[in-house]
Amino acid sequence: MKIGILGYGNLGRGVELAVHENPDAELAAVFTRRNPDSLKIATLNVPVVSANDAGDWAGKIDVMILCGGSATDLPVQTPEFAKMFNVIDSFDTHAKIPQHFEKVDAAAKNSNHVAIISVGWDPGLFSLARAYGSAILPSGSDYTFWGRGVSQGHSDAIRRIKGVKNARQYTVPIESALDAVRSGKNPALTTREKHLRECYVVLEDGADAAAVEREIKTMPNYFADYDTTVNFISEEELAKNHGGLAHGGFVIRTGKTGDNHGHVVEFNLKLDSNPEFTASVLVAYARAALRLQREGKSGCMTVLDIPPAYLSAKTGAELRAHLL
Amino acid sequence: MKIGILGYGNLGRGVELAVHENPDAELAAVFTRRNPDSLKIATLNVPVVSANDAGDWAGKIDVMILCGGSATDLPVQTPEFAKMFNVIDSFDTHAKIPQHFEKVDAAAKNSNHVAIISVGWDPGLFSLARAYGSAILPSGSDYTFWGRGVSQGHSDAIRRIKGVKNARQYTVPIESALDAVRSGKNPALTTREKHLRECYVVLEDGADAAAVEREIKTMPNYFADYDTTVNFISEEELAKNHGGLAHGGFVIRTGKTGDNHGHVVEFNLKLDSNPEFTASVLVAYARAALRLQREGKSGCMTVLDIPPAYLSAKTGAELRAHLL
Repeated sequence: MKIGILGYGNLGRGVELAVHENPDAELAAVFTRRNPDSLKIATLNVPVVSANDAGDWAGKIDVMILCGGSATDLPVQTPEFAKMFNVIDSFDTHAKIPQHFEKVDAAAKNSNHVAIISVGWDPGLFSLARAYGSAILPSGSDYTFWGRGVSQGHSDAIRRIKGVKNARQYTVPIESALDAVRSGKNPALTTREKHLRECYVVLEDGADAAAVEREIKTMPNYFADYDTTVNFISEEELAKNHGGLAHGGFVIRTGKTGDNHGHVVEFNLKLDSNPEFTASVLVAYARAALRLQREGKSGCMTVLDIPPAYLSAKTGAELRAHLL
Repeated sequence: MKIGILGYGNLGRGVELAVHENPDAELAAVFTRRNPDSLKIATLNVPVVSANDAGDWAGKIDVMILCGGSATDLPVQTPEFAKMFNVIDSFDTHAKIPQHFEKVDAAAKNSNHVAIISVGWDPGLFSLARAYGSAILPSGSDYTFWGRGVSQGHSDAIRRIKGVKNARQYTVPIESALDAVRSGKNPALTTREKHLRECYVVLEDGADAAAVEREIKTMPNYFADYDTTVNFISEEELAKNHGGLAHGGFVIRTGKTGDNHGHVVEFNLKLDSNPEFTASVLVAYARAALRLQREGKSGCMTVLDIPPAYLSAKTGAELRAHLL
């Protein structure tokens, strides 16, 4: 399958790496809104093309993987590119998924393409864990924990505070809460009981550390409902110790059957590189999108609509013989 | 959906309980090879019918859930019942799945029914974890651990030894092996390094305990390759402390992307009742089978072929809005 990448940030570079891990995939071109001549990609002999010229590539790319952000890029790009290509995106603004789905579905149906949106790990693999868990144990509860990993949104919120030069915020799941959930006690957990927020902050010269710390800890929605720790460090230390993109999390379904028999279904991820792992999920779903289109399907789908076997390069008979 | 149950052992009783957990499901009848008058089921006002008369119920049952054993029941029953009904089974002899699939597929295609085989947790949910994991991280390794839980096959093997009155064998995953896998070190683990075998044995009067212990520990395939402990106990203690049907296990995929970034994807189960949980999986897939048949599909499938959303009683729009 010939893969196109739109957007060459962390996620786009991750897709490039993931394509090379899959022998049935091939990178056809990278599309950018920057000046293509200014962009040097890792793969040799693959063209870098202006996003404005993407239309010239219709028919030459099997699946376009959209690597832009959910805030402003994907709401526009996914419906637009679904007119020309099968597309995969990682749209992750949970509350806006239904409206995004409708727009992409109309575009993809009209042009007989397959679009799979909100692919990654949350939404994505975590959604699968929630779907399987709740279908199998209808009398039960879902718990999702994130981390330990950097939250870009929370880091940005700290950086907007006056006197802050740079910042990184880790979301940290609380071990005792995880244990309480796994015990099957079905605890009602407050926001504060589930996650800690750990902040590493570089101050501007002359900034008031106590004022910054107070402003962080009392920030509504972002920090006020959590136990938050604030550590002031140098720019060098931030770069050295907090430049990584590790992440992870836990989805746990607990439920009862029969005469008070408890069951715990847990899915968890520990990722050294959030964008590279997310990219690996995107490429597996690109394979599914192409197969579905070749079967005559069109329109928008999510991970919940895709048979697991469609992600694999192996045939159904191979999967039944060796993996089932 | 109107559910039929064939076979009223632990699994059949579990399906009966699971049907009551799902408001869109209703128990239509229980089919048995025993004398129907001798069988008292938990649900009131539901008929118990001779398995020989199942043909009379064609068209009155949406999905028949087959609760027999994999050794001799299901290889015959699943193809036979697929001629009359949509069917679900939990066929779990991994090596024979391909031939079982072919026979069931022919029968189901011929009669325009949907059959989903090898449903449960292994094969079943563990197969899903292996399929998603290997598709997403092609450069990686799979590890499956079972337990702590009773292995029926190993318990039977002990009971066949001269001088043994009764026995229960637990398969126990070795914590240090799990930790080594989770560390991403990609260890090559021997059989002995992955699981312990813990045996509780009731002797016949006058049996030679040392000889029984030696025979267990040296039994090829079953015990010789493991560290095995043998505990001699009374029949009363066996009944009191080892009558449970708890089980569980772990599927872990580890893999690398890019510049040596490691990822760990883990799925694990901790089940108070193996048959009740397996039954809950069967009922969720019954829902999928009926939907697929109503869409005009027929033939044999496995969990790998079923879109996750088909297991849920919720609509696609509900799932996208609340769960994705």
